[in-house]
Amino acid sequence: MSRTVPFKQVDVFTSTPYKGNPVAIVNCWDLDESTIEQSTLQSIAVWTNLSETTFLFKPTNEKCDYKVRIFTPKAELEFAGHPTLGTCHAYLEFSGRKNVEKIYQECALGAVELTIKDKKLSFKGVKTDVVSISSDLTQEYTKCVTAPLVTEPILAEVGPHWVVALVEDNKTCFDMEIDYELMTKVAAKHGTTGMIIAGKFPDSEKYEMRAFAPAAGVVEDPVCGSGALALARYLQEVKKFDSSYEFEISQGGRLGRQGEIKAAITHSEGSIGYHIGGQCISVVNNGEFLI
Amino acid sequence: MSRTVPFKQVDVFTSTPYKGNPVAIVNCWDLDESTIEQSTLQSIAVWTNLSETTFLFKPTNEKCDYKVRIFTPKAELEFAGHPTLGTCHAYLEFSGRKNVEKIYQECALGAVELTIKDKKLSFKGVKTDVVSISSDLTQEYTKCVTAPLVTEPILAEVGPHWVVALVEDNKTCFDMEIDYELMTKVAAKHGTTGMIIAGKFPDSEKYEMRAFAPAAGVVEDPVCGSGALALARYLQEVKKFDSSYEFEISQGGRLGRQGEIKAAITHSEGSIGYHIGGQCISVVNNGEFLI
Repeated sequence: MSRTVPFKQVDVFTSTPYKGNPVAIVNCWDLDESTIEQSTLQSIAVWTNLSETTFLFKPTNEKCDYKVRIFTPKAELEFAGHPTLGTCHAYLEFSGRKNVEKIYQECALGAVELTIKDKKLSFKGVKTDVVSISSDLTQEYTKCVTAPLVTEPILAEVGPHWVVALVEDNKTCFDMEIDYELMTKVAAKHGTTGMIIAGKFPDSEKYEMRAFAPAAGVVEDPVCGSGALALARYLQEVKKFDSSYEFEISQGGRLGRQGEIKAAITHSEGSIGYHIGGQCISVVNNGEFLI
Repeated sequence: MSRTVPFKQVDVFTSTPYKGNPVAIVNCWDLDESTIEQSTLQSIAVWTNLSETTFLFKPTNEKCDYKVRIFTPKAELEFAGHPTLGTCHAYLEFSGRKNVEKIYQECALGAVELTIKDKKLSFKGVKTDVVSISSDLTQEYTKCVTAPLVTEPILAEVGPHWVVALVEDNKTCFDMEIDYELMTKVAAKHGTTGMIIAGKFPDSEKYEMRAFAPAAGVVEDPVCGSGALALARYLQEVKKFDSSYEFEISQGGRLGRQGEIKAAITHSEGSIGYHIGGQCISVVNNGEFLI
């Protein structure tokens, strides 16, 4: 227990320190992953107390640049959005690689493609399945939110399983309240992560979004990458875009944050891609973490 | 927003990483305190997401070695136990001072005396007032805990305001459940921080302790220094020791921690002192924090 490894804590979806969503990155590149117990990684994620802590390893998939394992204080995740961007940002700083346009991240969900452009990182969704919800469950989810839902909620399976729906506009989304106890029960019964609610700004291609996962111990996530992916997939389902569409998302205002997300739905050679990105800033650098 | 200051994250009340209670220390020694907004310090404490984040400054009281300001994600505190030990530990490492026996910490509650002995740090309680509780409120607090209280609860004002009581033994304390919703209401109504419940091990001078502050956003604190101070003060009130008494406290087992606290009640020249200590270990070292 006397070895140390490099450590960073990165703010994601912002260029202003403390206004985004933090993720802790423990750089285990020089350690043999098989020598580290799962329980140790879980204990560290409990101890940092952040929504996610990630562990960076050498890739085992030769197509990938690095491997990441993502932990909440409760469990290991297959994939998560803001930890993917924060870990890629940290990987680029740790490795000193410059002028790179594409990075491939190995994680439990598979290889995730990341693009670097104009100081912004974005990832392409690997899993973007949608599943309709029974009318009984739809009614229950509707009761969890004080504002009327203006679209039918759908389940988007993007790693986390988010139930997504729209409300009237951005202001309605910002102002609405949530019945956390009811949502905890409904999400647990349905086996989902929680709800993503968004409302469009009247005069621009921009949405106000909020993410709730009380059953997973996160009442409201300040800025949520997988939630943005779920929203993009949902908008394609509802609006049936037949060409590429870009939009912005603001999130976290109710929690004192100012998260800024860039989303893109690309149509290319018959296939549709979903891309979620934003800026990152390393707030804690050069840390040495005792592991 | 481009300056950086030294940063550590210290585990308190343990010598085993991740088994104690973490505190983040932002070393602002070289900054002019008047140039840093209260809102910036509060934003940082929200962002780290720890129960406490501390900011180390040059002392303004010439008797003291350093000044600390202590923030939860919700507010600034006059005093807190584990952040005091963690900050003193970090101060000693930052300053490189060795072979020191006494350190004086300036904080909003006044000058706190710390003693270093056998690799353990301890602080002496500055404020240790006790106040009896009305029978109506006593009944309400009693209902918050599933195990019967075997002593009358008393309010100990030690910085935080803890309502303290004993249950039958250590096992009862470990196993009991809490009605968080009720406790949140009762604590808010009474203007207190929460409850400290302890039970004695049958054959040793050791207590199992648990600390609950749901109204302050901390459902159960893993290892609580001010709670230990409140317990020591309470035991003096209940047991009327007429000479010095030392005891140990274990805490955090229900949360996967193994906190170890050393407590001492000293009688000297007619005055009674309360001392709370334990080991600390810096898990994140050499960090550079963007402030």
